[in-house]
Amino acid sequence: MRPISFLSDFGLEDEFVGVVHGVIAMLAPDSRVIDVTHAVGRGDVRSGALALVRSIPYLPEGICLAVVDPGVGTDRRAVAVETDWGVFVGPDNGLLSPAVAHVGGATRAVSLENPEARLPFASSTFHGRDVFAPAAALLAAGEAHLSELGPEVEVDTLLPMILPLAEIEESTIKARAWWIDRFGNVQVNVGPDDLMGLGLIPGSTATIRIGPNRHDVPWVSAYGDVPSGQLALLVDSAGLVSLAINGDSAAERLALSIDREVVFTAEAT
Amino acid sequence: MRPISFLSDFGLEDEFVGVVHGVIAMLAPDSRVIDVTHAVGRGDVRSGALALVRSIPYLPEGICLAVVDPGVGTDRRAVAVETDWGVFVGPDNGLLSPAVAHVGGATRAVSLENPEARLPFASSTFHGRDVFAPAAALLAAGEAHLSELGPEVEVDTLLPMILPLAEIEESTIKARAWWIDRFGNVQVNVGPDDLMGLGLIPGSTATIRIGPNRHDVPWVSAYGDVPSGQLALLVDSAGLVSLAINGDSAAERLALSIDREVVFTAEAT
Amino acid sequence: MRPISFLSDFGLEDEFVGVVHGVIAMLAPDSRVIDVTHAVGRGDVRSGALALVRSIPYLPEGICLAVVDPGVGTDRRAVAVETDWGVFVGPDNGLLSPAVAHVGGATRAVSLENPEARLPFASSTFHGRDVFAPAAALLAAGEAHLSELGPEVEVDTLLPMILPLAEIEESTIKARAWWIDRFGNVQVNVGPDDLMGLGLIPGSTATIRIGPNRHDVPWVSAYGDVPSGQLALLVDSAGLVSLAINGDSAAERLALSIDREVVFTAEAT
Repeated sequence: MRPISFLSDFGLEDEFVGVVHGVIAMLAPDSRVIDVTHAVGRGDVRSGALALVRSIPYLPEGICLAVVDPGVGTDRRAVAVETDWGVFVGPDNGLLSPAVAHVGGATRAVSLENPEARLPFASSTFHGRDVFAPAAALLAAGEAHLSELGPEVEVDTLLPMILPLAEIEESTIKARAWWIDRFGNVQVNVGPDDLMGLGLIPGSTATIRIGPNRHDVPWVSAYGDVPSGQLALLVDSAGLVSLAINGDSAAERLALSIDREVVFTAEAT
Repeated sequence: MRPISFLSDFGLEDEFVGVVHGVIAMLAPDSRVIDVTHAVGRGDVRSGALALVRSIPYLPEGICLAVVDPGVGTDRRAVAVETDWGVFVGPDNGLLSPAVAHVGGATRAVSLENPEARLPFASSTFHGRDVFAPAAALLAAGEAHLSELGPEVEVDTLLPMILPLAEIEESTIKARAWWIDRFGNVQVNVGPDDLMGLGLIPGSTATIRIGPNRHDVPWVSAYGDVPSGQLALLVDSAGLVSLAINGDSAAERLALSIDREVVFTAEAT
Repeated sequence: MRPISFLSDFGLEDEFVGVVHGVIAMLAPDSRVIDVTHAVGRGDVRSGALALVRSIPYLPEGICLAVVDPGVGTDRRAVAVETDWGVFVGPDNGLLSPAVAHVGGATRAVSLENPEARLPFASSTFHGRDVFAPAAALLAAGEAHLSELGPEVEVDTLLPMILPLAEIEESTIKARAWWIDRFGNVQVNVGPDDLMGLGLIPGSTATIRIGPNRHDVPWVSAYGDVPSGQLALLVDSAGLVSLAINGDSAAERLALSIDREVVFTAEAT
């Protein structure tokens, strides 16, 4: 019985997550289910894909059930994607792609069209419960092979996720905020190597520009390495650069939201 | 060891849900616990009952532990209700009634008065932890029979839940909003058959009136069947009629809250 | 395989809790994990310690993984603390101390410095995932003895949690709000014995003063013992005194926040 890691934008305000667990419990009574997160923004496929690729190195091999699916019930495909890590189950809208790539790419994929692998009377608005959960549970329990879930699809037809790249120039990097966490830490789409390309090193101070505002920001290794209330940058637990304020929200202080531009330069000398 | 499905208004802000899980783990160490939802509005028995009846077809047979209990510690009864699906444990305030009816009705019920089936020193403010969780766990583990939990009560004395009915007339239906989900979809207390009684069919357009405002609303089958930002109605995953906006919150746009009236008519021709 | 009870300030907005579950599932695939709560205020060590000590009597003996860790990555120690209840794993910042004391005190402790008991490439910002979860999982699975996690530390060097004491005088008690729950109930740092020292008994009426405002408050045993909307005090499910309003939020009505002073006196006669 393989574990199922489950991510969605269903929230915990309603019973959506609960009934998916219920369906899994009926079809795979001994499976372990790990709730990765269900607080992805409503229909925000990109944020869901980013959360999934950040998480995948820390999830046990097996089944990944991921549902952020604004196109549910339309002609977007529902798929199961086989990889060396295990099988990813979800909509074919780019949500799964970064995580699938992270674990080495798809080896095979099917379209979840077999009605016997769905709940009877499947709705057109809640495929998490009626299509994806049964597929994930049947795979986890070993009750179905991938090929029994529906017709094979070419893996190179699976929808990719286009992620914004930072604009890296000789003396500046134009990055973007792409994750703001509960603590108000702001992850941008650059890694420490990119900053080093500007001549920055851990312990040095970068200058960042957000709209008309400039801030000098020391590169530290822990939130508590600067005094309470002070802005810093660090390599976060996902290996990317984050802006953080010791004991406070950098996102609020800097008025940053997802997709806002943050320009990095080495400190003026 | 039977699974326990657990619904409450305890929220996740505090440790209430956690300690109920702890008590279950002590008394039924191998039981599977499914968190249906814990975000029912504080003391909102009717919304809890509606969430439970929507969920029950998707929960594995066994034990249902449901606690929305504004009268905790007063003389309202604490009960365990046997059905063909399994046993429902919770307050006798109408919370369990729609779900119990959905699975065929109560065959037997007891009042949870046996002190040996409660935690020692049971509080008068947290029966979820001290009374209901032990009863559910003992039943799940097979450590107690229903009759050992307390004296039998007549099933026809269990409190029903009075749900508002839509007023169905020849050319109009006066419905009410009774569930607003995380996505802002607004479920009303009518089914597709009711709309068909007005001469509407999937693909046709209804007119709805909310206070002084009128909207023409196409009957579609998926959120994405209308352009982004457009209002639609559809049969939702619970089989009832919902108002939805593709990619946005219908509840916010229409300023709808629970219990507000929505009047349906067939489109003026 | 011992159960793991897990408390943190990680929230459910991100995947932090999910990846900790993932790490545990990889290292201790058959362990049961109980989420006590993850909604402790960001970096609020004292509120985390209070939630933990309130919960510990209701958690199955085994491993307690608790992470509220504003000093992550600095020189604060990461520890595992052995007690008669089981082992507490978390930062040495006072978070664990009240719960450890509640179960009889520490018998042994180690500093989690063994790199083989951490994830490889452990970050300096997410020890919950990289240091604490592996330690908890290895202990739960019986894959490591306490002494294998790192060097022993003297238990009397573990950081205590200083909790504010009420000022108890002959005719008044100056208490403080120290927990406000989802329902708006306000727990203060006094017990029923303290109120009895003022001559109050269940059924009598206390006078409380909050800033310039005075309220006469009956001592009842259940929220529903007073009419809807009326203020009462009762002994709550943790055995301490709480202010509550039947069907409403006492915290909002009284404009109380954590640490605000509440002065109790016996009713003027």
